[in-house]
Amino acid sequence: MKGAVLYGPRDVRFEERSTPKIIEPTDAVIRISATCVCGSDLWPYRGINAIIQPTSMGHEYCGIVEEVGSAVTTFKTGQFVIGSFFASDNTCPHCKAGYQSSCQHKEFVGTAQAPLLRVPLADGTLVATPEVPPDDLIPSLLAASDVLGTGWFAAVAANVKPGATVAVVGDGAVGLLGVLSARQMGAGRVIAMSRHAPRQKLARKFGATDIVSERGDEAVARIRELTKGIGADSVLECVGTQESMMQAIGSTRPGGYIGYVGVPHGVELNGEKLFYAHVHLHGGPAPVRRFLPELIDLVWNRKIDPGKVFDLTLPLDQVAEGYRAMDERRAIKALLRP
Amino acid sequence: MKGAVLYGPRDVRFEERSTPKIIEPTDAVIRISATCVCGSDLWPYRGINAIIQPTSMGHEYCGIVEEVGSAVTTFKTGQFVIGSFFASDNTCPHCKAGYQSSCQHKEFVGTAQAPLLRVPLADGTLVATPEVPPDDLIPSLLAASDVLGTGWFAAVAANVKPGATVAVVGDGAVGLLGVLSARQMGAGRVIAMSRHAPRQKLARKFGATDIVSERGDEAVARIRELTKGIGADSVLECVGTQESMMQAIGSTRPGGYIGYVGVPHGVELNGEKLFYAHVHLHGGPAPVRRFLPELIDLVWNRKIDPGKVFDLTLPLDQVAEGYRAMDERRAIKALLRP
Repeated sequence: MKGAVLYGPRDVRFEERSTPKIIEPTDAVIRISATCVCGSDLWPYRGINAIIQPTSMGHEYCGIVEEVGSAVTTFKTGQFVIGSFFASDNTCPHCKAGYQSSCQHKEFVGTAQAPLLRVPLADGTLVATPEVPPDDLIPSLLAASDVLGTGWFAAVAANVKPGATVAVVGDGAVGLLGVLSARQMGAGRVIAMSRHAPRQKLARKFGATDIVSERGDEAVARIRELTKGIGADSVLECVGTQESMMQAIGSTRPGGYIGYVGVPHGVELNGEKLFYAHVHLHGGPAPVRRFLPELIDLVWNRKIDPGKVFDLTLPLDQVAEGYRAMDERRAIKALLRP
Repeated sequence: MKGAVLYGPRDVRFEERSTPKIIEPTDAVIRISATCVCGSDLWPYRGINAIIQPTSMGHEYCGIVEEVGSAVTTFKTGQFVIGSFFASDNTCPHCKAGYQSSCQHKEFVGTAQAPLLRVPLADGTLVATPEVPPDDLIPSLLAASDVLGTGWFAAVAANVKPGATVAVVGDGAVGLLGVLSARQMGAGRVIAMSRHAPRQKLARKFGATDIVSERGDEAVARIRELTKGIGADSVLECVGTQESMMQAIGSTRPGGYIGYVGVPHGVELNGEKLFYAHVHLHGGPAPVRRFLPELIDLVWNRKIDPGKVFDLTLPLDQVAEGYRAMDERRAIKALLRP
């Protein structure tokens, strides 16, 4: 089987990898219908996260169950399933509290840019669709695997309520789906921060009411201006840099909420500044599993169309071009078909 | 009029200060029944916060209205009132959201270690008791002005719910009253972190079910042990150092809540660590005004006795001894009577 392997900065190769098989009785192997390149894949691709050894890539997936281990009770061969980047048992105290991405037995699922994928803890990780979906639903179902689930978690963590004023920092796929999520939760006003025309357009399509193209302190000033000096009720931080985090904190009203899902890179928060900002802060790796049933339902019933973030579709063997296009911001998100 | 003035590290003097009077029509002047020394007063007293010039001290107060400005409508001479360290208009958007300590017109009230005190924005800042209280209630009413209100906010910010497992970092007056607040909100288990016998005893009196005397990583390990490896649902951080903040983060379960009210001194939070800790973080200067009506009611009806934190009572002219006793940890908190 051939799959994506990252060798070093900007060096992704499509090459022979060992074929996944059942190792633990709780495993499933699925045949990937679609996978994709994640904004977070660009951290190692750009050399910001060091690559110590050739690394199989990909953590977003949906597809058909090919085989299940002897202890798997929920799924059988032929079902269409979606899972998250952290396998979880869905029974431990952290899972029961809704934090499956901190499951006591969590395992990272990181080899999805391939035709076949081993998913550990299948019963606790995967969620099946009512039946095998029509082809046009696949991009949106794939989005639920990470970027939609993560944008949704950002909105939940930012306590988005009906009528609220929401700001979204970051116009990657997660930020854009944060806009969609906030609107879906009834936000009255959604301010998308973006300086890229195609992304602004998609943000509008997903329900953004305002666009702020400034950055840093100027963006904060603009948000203050748009909110009569008060600040936003809820801010979704979907980047993970020091600048984006400070932009989020500065844009939030005292007592307001920040949901942060951009994996922090070099972020240091000054305790005193945070103290006087008076904000609520919550985030981390999104517990996508918590939201999957609801998100699949919304997609299945065509209430939302998060698959729109895929503006480039490639055959899997062209995975390197997917990375390049996203790195150069020619594409928002690249979908890969084995 | 004589009051407390801090000149430099460990140099508090009781000396002549100008007598407060009405300046703005929204002011009140109150005759102090009792004031006290705050744990946060020890930061400048110890030279950790620099003293640029001789500084009048004191931000906790209750007493009798002596005079009101022409625009004050809620209070009249002779009423007994309690206020917070931030004067607030209680009408701006931040006040309406319950964050009076971030009021758009807030003013610090910092000259309360004196017989008379000017309180700006009196209508929005002060709350009256039903009548002039009996003398034995005064310590508990004074506690509501800051340490109780702050401990209460820590518990609210830490989302303490009935039955929850709560840990409290810090055994100063605020931490001890955090214990009381968590119990009052129905916490099932309250773990107080303290290594001082008299404070442990008071923590037990206020409802602590467990005492942890370890610090830092050892304290975190102990909390994990006490909670079957899960961590506490809610953690109250009532110190403000790097160690105490890391202790709080390490003690909280994924998805759990930290309420932090210790004014941070030199605290830097690593974004990535915070991200993977998966905690909720909220805090800042306590909006005591939000809680005053409820807290006064609880004290008035003798449901709680937060005044127990005062284990030293001195005449106001011995204010310097109050600072010394708290600095040397001979006293938890010193009450001062003009």
